[in-house]
Amino acid sequence: MANAYPAHLAELIDALRCLPGVGQKSAQRAAFHLLQRDRGGARRLAASLKEADAHVRACTRCRMFAEAELCVFCASGNRDASQLCVVEGPADAMAIEEGGGYRGLYFVLMGHLSPLDGIGPEEIGLDLLAARLDTDDIAELIIATNATLEGEATAHYLAEMARARGIAVSRIAQGIPRGGELEYVDGVTLSQAIAGRQKLL
Amino acid sequence: MANAYPAHLAELIDALRCLPGVGQKSAQRAAFHLLQRDRGGARRLAASLKEADAHVRACTRCRMFAEAELCVFCASGNRDASQLCVVEGPADAMAIEEGGGYRGLYFVLMGHLSPLDGIGPEEIGLDLLAARLDTDDIAELIIATNATLEGEATAHYLAEMARARGIAVSRIAQGIPRGGELEYVDGVTLSQAIAGRQKLL
Repeated sequence: MANAYPAHLAELIDALRCLPGVGQKSAQRAAFHLLQRDRGGARRLAASLKEADAHVRACTRCRMFAEAELCVFCASGNRDASQLCVVEGPADAMAIEEGGGYRGLYFVLMGHLSPLDGIGPEEIGLDLLAARLDTDDIAELIIATNATLEGEATAHYLAEMARARGIAVSRIAQGIPRGGELEYVDGVTLSQAIAGRQKLL
Repeated sequence: MANAYPAHLAELIDALRCLPGVGQKSAQRAAFHLLQRDRGGARRLAASLKEADAHVRACTRCRMFAEAELCVFCASGNRDASQLCVVEGPADAMAIEEGGGYRGLYFVLMGHLSPLDGIGPEEIGLDLLAARLDTDDIAELIIATNATLEGEATAHYLAEMARARGIAVSRIAQGIPRGGELEYVDGVTLSQAIAGRQKLL
């Protein structure tokens, strides 16, 4: 009896594998958990997957997840439209919002440049960003991609785009995090923190 | 802007947290992945959750997942009904099937005794098992619960049930796994392997 699971259970296990980082064993575990202990959760998840698929789309101005043509940031009249902060994903924008203090708009790449994976400028919406830099009245482009290799390469590309248009461009600071102890911070971060030191007096 | 995610996205992130081991960050990551890169996977998952919830139930004889009144094992005419192997979960029965060689039936506890969590004999179907031991013609009860503390405690309880009815009872062997090197096997396993040594000649 190669596979004695009922057909619908086998199909559920297979479908769960579309989730990132979920292999055969954890898909099986999740399916058993839902069918055995959380039928309500399973029904709720099915409904919300359907609803989210039907209603969630990309903001036409900044590519952030939205339910209307514009996301809450672009639709808001309270944000400073002269500042545009470029992030890799929606979660990054949320993290900046949680930190507070930023009142400008966002542009969400939904990824980063990765030529080996076939992800070039168009795949991360840089044609849309270029058009916006050309037409909108943007005073500063703030680059907030990750401090990874791909994030840095993408930041470099973005900086060139701004520079070619004479738009001021900045990169969020790299240094020791709040609460960080120098002893435990890696050398590259420390040398960046020293290179980026700020005058106090 | 405390939560700028569209309502349906926020609801999806919340619903994904019903999966075992999925917290806020990984639910977010899964939701983004599905909406951004795998809409087809999201629709398929929604459909299969609904179908599995509608069709998958417990076998009335052995508690294994089934789509009819009986699971494939209990419904099959080719299994030796005089042997009954007790396992903690459906995946355990599948693992034994993959190993091959066992032709008897199964009884699936869907858990193990855990009094502190309020899981007593009835919660793991031991009333159903007791009725079966009383009425069916079972020659041997094979206990294949996990070699954990809870699995051993459950095995002990099961052995008493069989003994009280004069039914032969066995526990699957504990010892070094195939390919195991003694040097890397823990002491308890080794002492069990020696205590359970089998005569060769």
